[in-house]
Amino acid sequence: MTVRLGFIGTGDLGADHVRRCANILSGATVPALYNRTQSKAQTVAEQFASEALVTATPEELIESPEVEAIVISSASQTHEDLVLKAIEAGKYVFCEKPLATTADGCERILHAESAAAKRLVQVGFMRPYDDGYQNLKSLLTDDAVGPVLMAHAAHRNPFSGPHYTREMLISETLIHDINTFHWLLGESFRTVQVFYPRPTSRADAALRDPQLVLLETSSGVLITVEVFVNCQFGYDVQCALIGENGELRLPEPARAALRKNGQTSVAIPMDCKERFATAYDRELQAFVDGVAAGTLTGPDSWAGYVASATADACIRAQKSGQKEAVQLITQPEFYRNDTAV
Amino acid sequence: MTVRLGFIGTGDLGADHVRRCANILSGATVPALYNRTQSKAQTVAEQFASEALVTATPEELIESPEVEAIVISSASQTHEDLVLKAIEAGKYVFCEKPLATTADGCERILHAESAAAKRLVQVGFMRPYDDGYQNLKSLLTDDAVGPVLMAHAAHRNPFSGPHYTREMLISETLIHDINTFHWLLGESFRTVQVFYPRPTSRADAALRDPQLVLLETSSGVLITVEVFVNCQFGYDVQCALIGENGELRLPEPARAALRKNGQTSVAIPMDCKERFATAYDRELQAFVDGVAAGTLTGPDSWAGYVASATADACIRAQKSGQKEAVQLITQPEFYRNDTAV
Amino acid sequence: MTVRLGFIGTGDLGADHVRRCANILSGATVPALYNRTQSKAQTVAEQFASEALVTATPEELIESPEVEAIVISSASQTHEDLVLKAIEAGKYVFCEKPLATTADGCERILHAESAAAKRLVQVGFMRPYDDGYQNLKSLLTDDAVGPVLMAHAAHRNPFSGPHYTREMLISETLIHDINTFHWLLGESFRTVQVFYPRPTSRADAALRDPQLVLLETSSGVLITVEVFVNCQFGYDVQCALIGENGELRLPEPARAALRKNGQTSVAIPMDCKERFATAYDRELQAFVDGVAAGTLTGPDSWAGYVASATADACIRAQKSGQKEAVQLITQPEFYRNDTAV
Amino acid sequence: MTVRLGFIGTGDLGADHVRRCANILSGATVPALYNRTQSKAQTVAEQFASEALVTATPEELIESPEVEAIVISSASQTHEDLVLKAIEAGKYVFCEKPLATTADGCERILHAESAAAKRLVQVGFMRPYDDGYQNLKSLLTDDAVGPVLMAHAAHRNPFSGPHYTREMLISETLIHDINTFHWLLGESFRTVQVFYPRPTSRADAALRDPQLVLLETSSGVLITVEVFVNCQFGYDVQCALIGENGELRLPEPARAALRKNGQTSVAIPMDCKERFATAYDRELQAFVDGVAAGTLTGPDSWAGYVASATADACIRAQKSGQKEAVQLITQPEFYRNDTAV
Repeated sequence: MTVRLGFIGTGDLGADHVRRCANILSGATVPALYNRTQSKAQTVAEQFASEALVTATPEELIESPEVEAIVISSASQTHEDLVLKAIEAGKYVFCEKPLATTADGCERILHAESAAAKRLVQVGFMRPYDDGYQNLKSLLTDDAVGPVLMAHAAHRNPFSGPHYTREMLISETLIHDINTFHWLLGESFRTVQVFYPRPTSRADAALRDPQLVLLETSSGVLITVEVFVNCQFGYDVQCALIGENGELRLPEPARAALRKNGQTSVAIPMDCKERFATAYDRELQAFVDGVAAGTLTGPDSWAGYVASATADACIRAQKSGQKEAVQLITQPEFYRNDTAV
Repeated sequence: MTVRLGFIGTGDLGADHVRRCANILSGATVPALYNRTQSKAQTVAEQFASEALVTATPEELIESPEVEAIVISSASQTHEDLVLKAIEAGKYVFCEKPLATTADGCERILHAESAAAKRLVQVGFMRPYDDGYQNLKSLLTDDAVGPVLMAHAAHRNPFSGPHYTREMLISETLIHDINTFHWLLGESFRTVQVFYPRPTSRADAALRDPQLVLLETSSGVLITVEVFVNCQFGYDVQCALIGENGELRLPEPARAALRKNGQTSVAIPMDCKERFATAYDRELQAFVDGVAAGTLTGPDSWAGYVASATADACIRAQKSGQKEAVQLITQPEFYRNDTAV
Repeated sequence: MTVRLGFIGTGDLGADHVRRCANILSGATVPALYNRTQSKAQTVAEQFASEALVTATPEELIESPEVEAIVISSASQTHEDLVLKAIEAGKYVFCEKPLATTADGCERILHAESAAAKRLVQVGFMRPYDDGYQNLKSLLTDDAVGPVLMAHAAHRNPFSGPHYTREMLISETLIHDINTFHWLLGESFRTVQVFYPRPTSRADAALRDPQLVLLETSSGVLITVEVFVNCQFGYDVQCALIGENGELRLPEPARAALRKNGQTSVAIPMDCKERFATAYDRELQAFVDGVAAGTLTGPDSWAGYVASATADACIRAQKSGQKEAVQLITQPEFYRNDTAV
Repeated sequence: MTVRLGFIGTGDLGADHVRRCANILSGATVPALYNRTQSKAQTVAEQFASEALVTATPEELIESPEVEAIVISSASQTHEDLVLKAIEAGKYVFCEKPLATTADGCERILHAESAAAKRLVQVGFMRPYDDGYQNLKSLLTDDAVGPVLMAHAAHRNPFSGPHYTREMLISETLIHDINTFHWLLGESFRTVQVFYPRPTSRADAALRDPQLVLLETSSGVLITVEVFVNCQFGYDVQCALIGENGELRLPEPARAALRKNGQTSVAIPMDCKERFATAYDRELQAFVDGVAAGTLTGPDSWAGYVASATADACIRAQKSGQKEAVQLITQPEFYRNDTAV
């Protein structure tokens, strides 16, 4: 069976997803594309999906009978509206993170999806599809270290773009770590706090880069996350979980060791597309397979909501300098029996 | 475009390849299967390819107009005949290693393929599709260590089956390392020699496990390969290349580090299907893509021939205890412009 | 030249120091020992220093003309008084950390030593003598990562004794990390804060183990220190420094890698005497050499004071749950030109 | 008790040993020095042992009543004669490797020492005093991997001096590995063979650098040793032992990891004095302690003999290109109950 995917947003990551579906994944075709700048969609179609129709509006794509399921990689502020329209059309939708730019927006999606009485949404958190993180998850499931008490993470990018803001450091970057720990630990967050170390001189002072975020889960696990989006040296993601009986640590990407000139060196990836190449493939394959089977399995709207609500609290904490409570609505019955990734 | 693959041999690895093509790869369908024990093919069809026809003979599958390309995972001694028939039928064929059980058999395939004047054969050496080995290859291509002078490799399996023979230690196991160095260094071998260390008591004495093989390439690179098929502890593949200016080493598989009970431990894969899961996916995707594009790119018949001719010399060396020359025919013009992996 | 050392306190670590001076170090002899329980001193004398006199009081030892310099390893609450008496006697004194149990006590020592107008005190912080930490220090000195912005550390012990209290987690354990960063970064601390993660069930609830301490240096470097004194798995000390241009990480102790039973494992030391064996040797050798040369070089009274004053603030922060300021007196002129370790 | 050491040979390593005894070791003084170029001895005396007498001849030093034990670091061809004279004088002697330049020379020492009926000689093999090698030895003693079947080693120097010859690659470099395996495995060697890989262009062609040596122990353990004395990148010593149940690997020296510019790098030592600094300290401390106790414990004359006799066979194998037998005399009763390191 082949799933017919329509793509909304064919920028950097969106185009990469089209390539992925056209060339790498099993069971997917690409009948339609939409992009705000239509010529960009045209170019991507020519490159990867020559028979795809480029639609004039996203609504046209969503409603097209040629399109069975939708992949959204457009700008973050368009996500909520597009996901709601896909749900209304009764179609499966893969939406890049964040699911919506506010917790309120996510809530509206939760309501719509619950009302449709069918799980239709997968959120684009790719780390649960990374071998290393899966390894951590499976060792936690096997109780390798006993109850987790603390965790330490780092999320480092070599450089942030010129328009990167202090809030985006949370809403675009930290949000992955929020979701990661939600998924790894199977619990949500109670409080958050943000600290500003001495800033790097290599970024705009207003960005206040790096930052240290403390997340406290409902059971009291304390998580430190260093976020540093201008670390210069690489795209570097670290994660350690400390339990009553031991520690688990995310492996480094496997790269050849070179002995030369008095040192042994190992390359560090320079961007997320290199670091998580296989994970991106797998998250979209999971979506395609889920659509084909009629049962989605990856990060759901509830995960998207928890991430956004927690990120909102972090942004408040950036401003207040205080510990901020994470306020979550009661988890709707509809989302209680999620199939874990 | 979708490539229609017929599978000959649905044992352990063959069934895994069917699963791969049905569920993971892009652009492949499975219209036909054959297995010596027909019921086994039936079971695999039910599991992964419910619409596939199970043929009564391999010839029926090869000739079926529903089948565009053939994947051979049957017993080694059937390879030569089946590949020749596929070539005769003008069809692309992916054949698990070894291409044939003797260098002579491989030569007959070289002649048939040259006569067909079209590259039709890809040999199932998967290591060139492994991230770690590709990393080595790309660093060599970038001249990271200068001219290579020596290499050290180990090929360890936890246990060999009961029917594993001393020759199979070469023809089934070492053959991967032979191909690996042929591909990495871009040269073939001049002489080989086999040494017997003190044997493990955990295998049949006749097997003489482990063994040490010395391979000398045409430019004089000296390669040591430890082959140990009952090492107990894991499926462990090592490779180091020593050049004039430095050393390159194959990375270990990325696995989480666990600190517990006074030690830090990292899991070692226990079989090749775990160790090379992604590489197997990629080698078959490359075959599918090559068939669709009309241009195969992976290990070709010449690589299969070199591996078998070198393995033959190693088996002679096992018996003689002497250095044995590797005798190769002149590389036919047809194979001189191989597209490297 | 040989330095004649008198030892006060011959418990676990004290006896080890006697052994060290008698058997390992260059240029030291042991003419006198004192211990509260005299028989214990007797036993240690028999074992390592058969010609040593066991004195009835510490004062007798301090004043003995046979004793040129004093090593104090007695209970923490005795340190201040003994160091002051050694200074009064005009003798060099090596005092195990903490220099005094309060910042006030350390201040009195600063005054006495300044008044003596001669550096006489070395505090027993051994990490600056560890190869790994020295490697960090030397790379920082070479500006390997640019200005440091953050640091992450962990200080883990497998088990704490039965009488270990929440305060001791700071005054006996964290104090090493406080000194480490004071020395590595060359600056003192502005504020501290303590957080309580979900506690381990393997320690007394009142201990609240583990804890997370945030230290902010005068230039704004933000340091996270996980302190976990019942981590079960080993004596494990971690340190990472994040600068504008890169990250530096403390090496793991060098131990053989064992591949066996599906894993590669490396032993973790189980106590500080194993982890820092060589560092202990070197700190005492530095003291002996310093005494012989008439110029001490290791951690001085000011370092001892900064550590204690910062620890005091951490203990206040344990109780208040708030960020606490570290109040330091102005650094006396006398201590401004310390010879760094 | 203090041991009075006389030093013969105060070149590079000899001067370092004087410094060691004067400044680092416990229980040693330096009353006398001799060097062929007397002014060099004078300089070293001034630097490290101002009260030492510089003798006019080595014999004068050996016979001096001020000298209790002798440390020989003079040119290799002088070793035999000087060791014999020390034995004749009834004095303990530490002799840098090789014990003598030929197996015959070593035999004469065996006879003299046996005749003296007292162990007087320690040979300067320092690796058994290195933490990493001791870790290997202790894990072997605990039967961590079962019976050893194979081993792989590498002995790499960045550059060899201008007068380094093909034979010295064996007699000065490989000899350490010969002794290492003799000590680790507790057995001597049956046969040896030498192979010449493609040579580096960075050394004189006559040197034929690198080389691969195969050593076969009496029980059939097969050892590969890569010797490469112009590897450019560092002083790099590797050792892996493969047993029936697992593999043991020598740890890398502990050095800080630096993440910077897209790579994680760890420094490699550039010479043996850096790599084995602590091991050199310990081997001489063991000698001093052994002299004081009247019982030497380190590598003995028999170990020196085995190393030289095996090296002789390797030099024959360099010339013959064939497998050469190692011919050993029967181990004299006198050496059968060696105290292992």
